[in-house]
Amino acid sequence: MGGRRIICLGCAFWDSIFKVDEIPRHGTKLLAEQAVQAASGMATAAAATIARLGGMVELWTRIGDDATGDAYLQNLALERVDTGQVRRVPGGRTWISTVLVDRAGERLAVPFADPALDPDPGWLPLARVAGAGAVLVDVRWPAGAHALLTQARRDGVPTVLDADIAPPALLRDLIPLADHVLFSEPALQSLVPGADIDAALAAIADGIDAAVIGVTCGARGALIRRRGDRTTLAVPSIPIAVQDTLNAGDVWHGAYVHGLVEGWPLERRVRLANVAAAIKCERFGGRLGAPGLAEVMARADT
Amino acid sequence: MGGRRIICLGCAFWDSIFKVDEIPRHGTKLLAEQAVQAASGMATAAAATIARLGGMVELWTRIGDDATGDAYLQNLALERVDTGQVRRVPGGRTWISTVLVDRAGERLAVPFADPALDPDPGWLPLARVAGAGAVLVDVRWPAGAHALLTQARRDGVPTVLDADIAPPALLRDLIPLADHVLFSEPALQSLVPGADIDAALAAIADGIDAAVIGVTCGARGALIRRRGDRTTLAVPSIPIAVQDTLNAGDVWHGAYVHGLVEGWPLERRVRLANVAAAIKCERFGGRLGAPGLAEVMARADT
Repeated sequence: MGGRRIICLGCAFWDSIFKVDEIPRHGTKLLAEQAVQAASGMATAAAATIARLGGMVELWTRIGDDATGDAYLQNLALERVDTGQVRRVPGGRTWISTVLVDRAGERLAVPFADPALDPDPGWLPLARVAGAGAVLVDVRWPAGAHALLTQARRDGVPTVLDADIAPPALLRDLIPLADHVLFSEPALQSLVPGADIDAALAAIADGIDAAVIGVTCGARGALIRRRGDRTTLAVPSIPIAVQDTLNAGDVWHGAYVHGLVEGWPLERRVRLANVAAAIKCERFGGRLGAPGLAEVMARADT
Repeated sequence: MGGRRIICLGCAFWDSIFKVDEIPRHGTKLLAEQAVQAASGMATAAAATIARLGGMVELWTRIGDDATGDAYLQNLALERVDTGQVRRVPGGRTWISTVLVDRAGERLAVPFADPALDPDPGWLPLARVAGAGAVLVDVRWPAGAHALLTQARRDGVPTVLDADIAPPALLRDLIPLADHVLFSEPALQSLVPGADIDAALAAIADGIDAAVIGVTCGARGALIRRRGDRTTLAVPSIPIAVQDTLNAGDVWHGAYVHGLVEGWPLERRVRLANVAAAIKCERFGGRLGAPGLAEVMARADT
C-alpha cells in the first residue's frame, strides 16, 4: 500500500492573466477588465489542485532567485503545496507567461521559458520518492521528468504522465516510463496523425504497457482504456458556461492523481477529474479557479 | 535659480514585455523569443530616463504592498531613482501591464489598472516641492497631478505636463497648470478634432499661457511653439531602425525635463529628447532601452 504523498514535477511559470473583451487583430492598447497573477505551469497548477482537493502534495520544479520567483512562492504559500523542494537557480530568471482570455473564452497565451534556467536534474531529492503515493510529471522539463519517472519505477511508485503537446521524440521517451499516460487531444493527434481520436488511442495503447491510457477532450469529457481492454470507455463531463479554459488540463491531471492515491475506481476518478476541470472553466483566472473537493462531489453527483 | 532635483509623478506599472514574431489573429499559444520585466508607466519610465542621463530625480507614485510591488521597487533600485516617496497602499494591488512587440515594431499593450488602488493624493509630501528644479506629471493619476502642479505653481517651480491621450476634460483641467505642455499626437488631435497637427498646436497655444507647447511626432521629431511665437519650430529626429517604440514618449519627456533643469536651450533640449527617444526605439524592452547621456550627445551631434 503506497502513501498518500504525491510528487508533482515539471515547469513553473508566473502567469499574468488578463480578461479582455476581444483579442484584437492589430497592435493597439487594450484595457483589461480584470487581471490576476498566479504561480502556474502544468505541474504547479496540478499540485495546487491536489492541495485544494485535500491531498498531500510536494512540488519539484525550478525557478530563478529573482523577484518573480519570490512572487511565485508567495502565491503558492496560499495553497497547501509543499514547496520545500522548489530549486531557486542562482542568477536564474523565473519563467513568465501572459494570457489574454476573451469574452468567448478564447485565449492567447505567450510564454517565455528562459532557456538559460539550469535544466540539470542532478539536485532532485530522489531519495524522497520511495513511500510516495504517486508521481505526476509534465513534459516541460524533460530531464527532470525522466529522472523522477525512472526512480519511481525503481521504487514501485505509480507514475502518471501529463502528455501535452511536445516534440514527438520527447513524448516517446517518457511514455514507456508511465503507468498512466494521459494525453491532451493535440498531443495524441501529433503521435498518430490523421487517425480519429479513438483509433489513435487504440494505436498507442497497442504499443505500450501502461495500466491506463487516456485522452482529455474538453467539453466531451475523456476517453480511457485500461491495459488489455478491447474497447474505449467514454466518460462524460458536465454542461457548463465556459469562461476560461486556461489550466483546465492541469486541474484534470491533478484531480486524476489525487483520485488514484485515494483509491477511487478508474471511472469514478476520471469522472471527478472531468468535473473538477469543468468547474475550473466556469471561472476566470487559470488555475485559481480550481475547486475544492466538496464542490466537485456535489457537481459530479447531480 | 532652481535646484536640479526633478519630481516625477504619475502611474506605476509592472510591465512584462514579450518579443514575438507576429501578433496573432486568433487565440493560440505563441512562444516569445525574449521577454523582460520592468518597473514602468509613464512617470516611472521618465524618472528612470532622467537618472540615466545623470539627473537627480524622485518618483511620486503609488503601488500595492504585494509581491509585484516588491518587484517594481527592486527593479527601480537598479536605476538611480529616489523611490523614498513611493507609497505602498495597504492591501493594494500594483498595476500590471503586458506588452507584445512584434518583428515590425508593432505592439499590443494590455494594461490592468486596478481602480481599487487608493487615488487620494493627501499623503503627497508637498513640502518637498519648494526648491525642486522642475516637476513632471503624467495624466494617469489626475488627482495627484493636480495637487503637485498646483503646489509647484505656488512655489515657483517649473511644471511639465506629459499630455498623453486621456479624457479631454482631464487634459483641459491639467493644461492650464503647466508651463510646458507636451502632447502626444493622438492626445493633441483628440482636443482639436479634424485639424492638421500644426493648426491644432496653434489653436491650443492661443488659448493658454504656457511658456512652451509642443507635440511629439515619432520618427518625424517634434513640433514646438514658445509663448508668443507666430510660427512652429520643427525639430527633426535621427534615422533609426525601429525595434520597439514602447515608452519612447516617456523617454522623450524625461530627457526634455532633464534638459530644462540643466539649462539647455529649447531647441537643443528638444533635439536631445528626440535623439534619446529614437535610441530607445532601436532596442527591445520598453524603457530598459533608455540611453545614457554620452550616447545621446554622440548621436545628436553626428
